[in-house]
Amino acid sequence: MAAFDPAVNRHWLLDARPKGGNFAEVLSLREEKAPEPGPGEYRVRTIYLSLDPTNAVWMQYDSYLPAVPLGTTMRGLVLGVVDISNHDRIKVGDIVMGMGRWADYVITNGESMGKVPNIPGLPLLAYLGPLGMTGATAYFGLLDIGKPKEGETVVVSAAAGAVGSLVGQIARLKGCRAVGIAGSEEKCNWLTGELGFDAAVNYKAQGWRKQLRAAVPQGVDIYFENVGGEITETVLELLNIKGRIPFCGAISQYNATEPQPGPRNLSILVSRRARMEGFLVLDYTPRMAEMYAEMGPWVADGRIKWKVDLDQGLENTLTSFGKLFSGGNTGKLAVQVSAEP
Amino acid sequence: MAAFDPAVNRHWLLDARPKGGNFAEVLSLREEKAPEPGPGEYRVRTIYLSLDPTNAVWMQYDSYLPAVPLGTTMRGLVLGVVDISNHDRIKVGDIVMGMGRWADYVITNGESMGKVPNIPGLPLLAYLGPLGMTGATAYFGLLDIGKPKEGETVVVSAAAGAVGSLVGQIARLKGCRAVGIAGSEEKCNWLTGELGFDAAVNYKAQGWRKQLRAAVPQGVDIYFENVGGEITETVLELLNIKGRIPFCGAISQYNATEPQPGPRNLSILVSRRARMEGFLVLDYTPRMAEMYAEMGPWVADGRIKWKVDLDQGLENTLTSFGKLFSGGNTGKLAVQVSAEP
Repeated sequence: MAAFDPAVNRHWLLDARPKGGNFAEVLSLREEKAPEPGPGEYRVRTIYLSLDPTNAVWMQYDSYLPAVPLGTTMRGLVLGVVDISNHDRIKVGDIVMGMGRWADYVITNGESMGKVPNIPGLPLLAYLGPLGMTGATAYFGLLDIGKPKEGETVVVSAAAGAVGSLVGQIARLKGCRAVGIAGSEEKCNWLTGELGFDAAVNYKAQGWRKQLRAAVPQGVDIYFENVGGEITETVLELLNIKGRIPFCGAISQYNATEPQPGPRNLSILVSRRARMEGFLVLDYTPRMAEMYAEMGPWVADGRIKWKVDLDQGLENTLTSFGKLFSGGNTGKLAVQVSAEP
Repeated sequence: MAAFDPAVNRHWLLDARPKGGNFAEVLSLREEKAPEPGPGEYRVRTIYLSLDPTNAVWMQYDSYLPAVPLGTTMRGLVLGVVDISNHDRIKVGDIVMGMGRWADYVITNGESMGKVPNIPGLPLLAYLGPLGMTGATAYFGLLDIGKPKEGETVVVSAAAGAVGSLVGQIARLKGCRAVGIAGSEEKCNWLTGELGFDAAVNYKAQGWRKQLRAAVPQGVDIYFENVGGEITETVLELLNIKGRIPFCGAISQYNATEPQPGPRNLSILVSRRARMEGFLVLDYTPRMAEMYAEMGPWVADGRIKWKVDLDQGLENTLTSFGKLFSGGNTGKLAVQVSAEP
């Protein structure tokens, strides 16, 4: 398939529901003439396509959003530039972000997309990472659901991922001890060496449970849950009384062919009087300004470090997407579809 | 073994940790001379011994309380009368309640026991049921953790049990729809016919999932969790956005020989932005006055109905205790050890 061509709209069609992570069998890249916006609509040329674990859920079943209908273009978070506009408040050249498609172009009436804020000195990619939905997930999940207090211990799983890597840094900035769980020595070194995590544990290494226990001498006050499975069971054992578990997702289970059992020790929530609470970043859309106000300066002056794992070309989306589930990415995963203006 | 004899202290000794509910193999009834209180202590003659699901946890492992040490008398909630006192604020004839032993007599310095409040016209057994720890579990679990709003739907499992039967009635008094899940038609009839539950579903009947769905046309706002297992999975599917799950216990798992898997659909907490929160009634000891103030009149004027499933004789404790796990009791389970004064 050719690279980006302004006259053509390449798009990934969802042909069937994936099973066990067989994305290549159910998604195919098609071409059509680039679409034109109707009255009141505008057209977005995709610059960056965000790849997120939750995309795998949208492919499979109705959840907080309806499943993507079969025979339609896959849904995804897009950052792009407006190149044709029939919309009264959006003009050509505006940079917008929001719910789009795995495609070169998105047509919208503006309901699902909005202009990114104007914070000087920040690269566009920041709006896909720490100042986008990813940042908001970490920020509101940790602060609004987890309610950390100075001196507490925060453990985060998938810690080298887009959300996890921010959670630990925000925890540190709030005066907490930050401990990450990740899947390689390299990732762990990045967390402690560059991002300032107090400790990081490689769950693929021998004796990791003992290491985790040693890394939380005061127990765990907040466990930011991204993964599910055995990691969750292990952290539950270390949970303090009145512990909190902001429940962001369970990536270990998204591609399972059978429903996976929940933690066998869930009753620990009773003896520890602990709270597990699910949340969705979409609910925080009206509060994004709070996040920009606090995170903006942190990101601008480098107190929050971030990394985008950027692959090139819409045609490589699937290869890139697979990294999320194989532990192949560090930081935010995205595909560059066309050039920045 | 002989019946109650004032000179003898019969007591149930825990000889080993139970496995799979083999209580009769690990507990044995022994006799000793009735004990005398030391300086500052008083002696309680047990009138009623409360039997609660959590007792099975205490026998097995450290949880919110240390496991009962092997070779010592089993721990239990006791309502009794003071018959000897060397304590400056407790006199002979006082009715006290608190953490005691599966025994004819309890010696205490008063730290683990206290006088029951003086609400006129109530039988003593009320302090074991709706106005005791059982009542407080239902009251604070539903109101403080569940935070019901008028018009919401509350589902409770083990609904014909001591706590569950109160939860539904309190929910009704707060203007909610109350739906119970119980294990027989007879229990369900008691819930709807006598206690005023809006609906009750027998989870042992064919098609109970469909019945439950029909019983909650507006979905489930609060699920008061007493059981775990498949019932939990079924209710999770019906949970509304921002649903709450006061997590009281998981009786289906207490006697399992292997750790039981948690709900396979726990991730529903994410898509529904729902909260599951464990609690222990012991934490509410300082707030018992709130419960007495609101529940006292409800119990006194019959707006809250309750039932004690009362067996006779300390020697029959084990037979009685087994009912908790076989579904054999309706309402609060207790053993009468000696006569009321």
